[in-house]
Amino acid sequence: MMKLKVPVIIVNYKTYSEATGKKAVKLSKTAEAVSMESGVNICVAPQLADLASVCDAVSIPVFAQHIDPIVPGSSTGHILLESVKEAGAAGTLINHAEKQLKLCDIEAIVARTREAGMVSVVCTNNATVSQAAAALEPDIISLEPPELIGTGIPVSKTKPDAVTEMVKLVKHVNPRVVTLCGAGITKGEDVAAALKLGTMGVLVASGIVKAKDPRKVLMEFSEAISKTM
Amino acid sequence: MMKLKVPVIIVNYKTYSEATGKKAVKLSKTAEAVSMESGVNICVAPQLADLASVCDAVSIPVFAQHIDPIVPGSSTGHILLESVKEAGAAGTLINHAEKQLKLCDIEAIVARTREAGMVSVVCTNNATVSQAAAALEPDIISLEPPELIGTGIPVSKTKPDAVTEMVKLVKHVNPRVVTLCGAGITKGEDVAAALKLGTMGVLVASGIVKAKDPRKVLMEFSEAISKTM
Amino acid sequence: MMKLKVPVIIVNYKTYSEATGKKAVKLSKTAEAVSMESGVNICVAPQLADLASVCDAVSIPVFAQHIDPIVPGSSTGHILLESVKEAGAAGTLINHAEKQLKLCDIEAIVARTREAGMVSVVCTNNATVSQAAAALEPDIISLEPPELIGTGIPVSKTKPDAVTEMVKLVKHVNPRVVTLCGAGITKGEDVAAALKLGTMGVLVASGIVKAKDPRKVLMEFSEAISKTM
Amino acid sequence: MMKLKVPVIIVNYKTYSEATGKKAVKLSKTAEAVSMESGVNICVAPQLADLASVCDAVSIPVFAQHIDPIVPGSSTGHILLESVKEAGAAGTLINHAEKQLKLCDIEAIVARTREAGMVSVVCTNNATVSQAAAALEPDIISLEPPELIGTGIPVSKTKPDAVTEMVKLVKHVNPRVVTLCGAGITKGEDVAAALKLGTMGVLVASGIVKAKDPRKVLMEFSEAISKTM
Repeated sequence: MMKLKVPVIIVNYKTYSEATGKKAVKLSKTAEAVSMESGVNICVAPQLADLASVCDAVSIPVFAQHIDPIVPGSSTGHILLESVKEAGAAGTLINHAEKQLKLCDIEAIVARTREAGMVSVVCTNNATVSQAAAALEPDIISLEPPELIGTGIPVSKTKPDAVTEMVKLVKHVNPRVVTLCGAGITKGEDVAAALKLGTMGVLVASGIVKAKDPRKVLMEFSEAISKTM
Repeated sequence: MMKLKVPVIIVNYKTYSEATGKKAVKLSKTAEAVSMESGVNICVAPQLADLASVCDAVSIPVFAQHIDPIVPGSSTGHILLESVKEAGAAGTLINHAEKQLKLCDIEAIVARTREAGMVSVVCTNNATVSQAAAALEPDIISLEPPELIGTGIPVSKTKPDAVTEMVKLVKHVNPRVVTLCGAGITKGEDVAAALKLGTMGVLVASGIVKAKDPRKVLMEFSEAISKTM
Repeated sequence: MMKLKVPVIIVNYKTYSEATGKKAVKLSKTAEAVSMESGVNICVAPQLADLASVCDAVSIPVFAQHIDPIVPGSSTGHILLESVKEAGAAGTLINHAEKQLKLCDIEAIVARTREAGMVSVVCTNNATVSQAAAALEPDIISLEPPELIGTGIPVSKTKPDAVTEMVKLVKHVNPRVVTLCGAGITKGEDVAAALKLGTMGVLVASGIVKAKDPRKVLMEFSEAISKTM
Repeated sequence: MMKLKVPVIIVNYKTYSEATGKKAVKLSKTAEAVSMESGVNICVAPQLADLASVCDAVSIPVFAQHIDPIVPGSSTGHILLESVKEAGAAGTLINHAEKQLKLCDIEAIVARTREAGMVSVVCTNNATVSQAAAALEPDIISLEPPELIGTGIPVSKTKPDAVTEMVKLVKHVNPRVVTLCGAGITKGEDVAAALKLGTMGVLVASGIVKAKDPRKVLMEFSEAISKTM
């Protein structure tokens, strides 16, 4: 029973200068404003050091970019679920292409988020890996072909078959899992294409964070969702 | 030209429940109060999700437990120096026994902290590794024999020769590096022993965080420093 | 279309002194002799440095303990499929509890073994992870609860439900995948129990390698298989 | 008291197709022939699966490309010093740019090689890291700027100051350590330049392995050494 409303746009701030510190808070307020105005669910995933201040500043769902497969104790320098939850995070990205994890750790992290009532978003690099991830019963699986990340070449238009296959394989294993896609998404039509392929939204980073006018692009994405659904 | 006043007590909160979220802020205020009362420099290293709120709450130096060897950009889930600096961190632990790093990454992180005017504390597991770390010109090297961490068996009393050797080897390579030791430190006499062996303080975790009365133990540590110096 | 005959006993030599160098060759000859005498398929997984000499010495299937997700090129210190194949390996263990891998790497390695006509044995730590692994379409999945490895407490008798669940979940995703189990297997009755739970054999290490008389134990295992099937 | 004769040419076979399996043996015989003819010490570092057959085929020193910081026991998929030693290896590369290691592991591996009477070659990416490595007392340190590896742009001619600085810093910490350099070495003049900068030879890979006529290039390298020394 996931609490996240779909369709959804998740904005990953990565470690971009444009979304670090005060700029992370500012961008999050922009995302919140667009979400309120458009009625489309928009979530943000700031860096960990900015997580608490972003959670304090906005009421849209905020995600960690990563947590470690640990319980409270002696794990200096690791990311504890309890710490991000108390900071206000609604969920976490897991296994992003830039932070790929061991299979056993993905399983452990997904299980921990489930027990904690947090939303798990497992990122995957192809349809086969997505199917494997579906067996772990995360809330969301987001396909992001690594070769397209940051390119502006949209997965939803360039690799429609991979997205369709991913949606099919995930549903086969676990029909409750929500599917997203990402990589190269920069326009409303890319988002519309993603929905038409069977996903329930997009995971986006540079397309928003590095946009000249993030508000405008977020609004374009939201309108594409409103029109498509 | 390090800005950190020595001798120093650095309290590592690890991922202990007793020092997560609001408890991290509370413990930091205790540390600040003892530092003000005793005049001894006390620093704290909370979890990353608590870093900003701790930095907001206290004026003693706050450290990250880890940063990654990255520059701003596409590094989802990694820890960017700029993010912890903007949150208010004065420095960072590097290569803690529970987060051991590649040699090339330690070098890159120390170099980044130097450029950013942040304090680097490289943790090491023996005297030879300490000597190697000294060549990287960090501000501080802290020897923590892994087998003693969390045991209550103090390195400064159990392995005095290892500490003396570490101090000597580090000074040989780089006399400007400040040396600390840690592992098993729970009493004022352990701290005093550490100073007598030539270090300028201690890195401590469970000895404070899991103490029944952290204030009392911190005060005991501080008095041991005041009497010894 | 896997070429490996089942049921099967796979003996993992780990990095045990008792199965390094000439001793690896000797133990492999013992395994071959028992396999010939009993008619039960026995495979061995020696260390990489011993792989070629073991392959030269015996005609039973020999496995690598690990290969890396790489293609020929600039990967100093990594294990290339082509190198172990040319040495004579019939397949490889993947993701052993002592060498756990990223999900994306397991997928890539399984795909490479398939293209190369080699047998893939993916090790897993629980039933959920086994189901995920099944989506990657390896030839074999071997469940080894980490807490039982090397204990002599047999998974097949201590955790029968976990094994049954694993077999069921794997078959649900991919009925062509052969299932094994391992950890704590030291007696013929442990092997018989494993088969009765629906697996097609065992992955065993210390139970054979550290046995006073490996030949005798291998024979006991083989007889248990012959009687059970 | 290192047993390796210097100056020396170490040929790293990486995971190149041109130096896998039988081709590894053939190239090693070529290296041996050139070494005998020229009187210059040439060593080879084949892949692990080829180590034993190369050691059997030639009498020049053979190196592993990597070993793990482990002792005999339960380390499936890891590389045990004892296994490569029994296969005939004279030493091992450590911390190659393509297999970078934790500082504590480099220290442990160097210590193990010393106890085993094997030659340790620690690879480093810059002069500072080289100085740190020198504190670990390996037999050899080889500087290889990662950005030049495989380019054909020779470190010895493009970055002479980095090489000179490396030699100076290493000698300052430990005058017994032999220094090499590598990356982009393809001609005799590159080797001569390396010696003139104070090193005792080169670590080379594609310059030999991917040469049209490896014998000819190895002879050119050897002659450059003979003329320079």
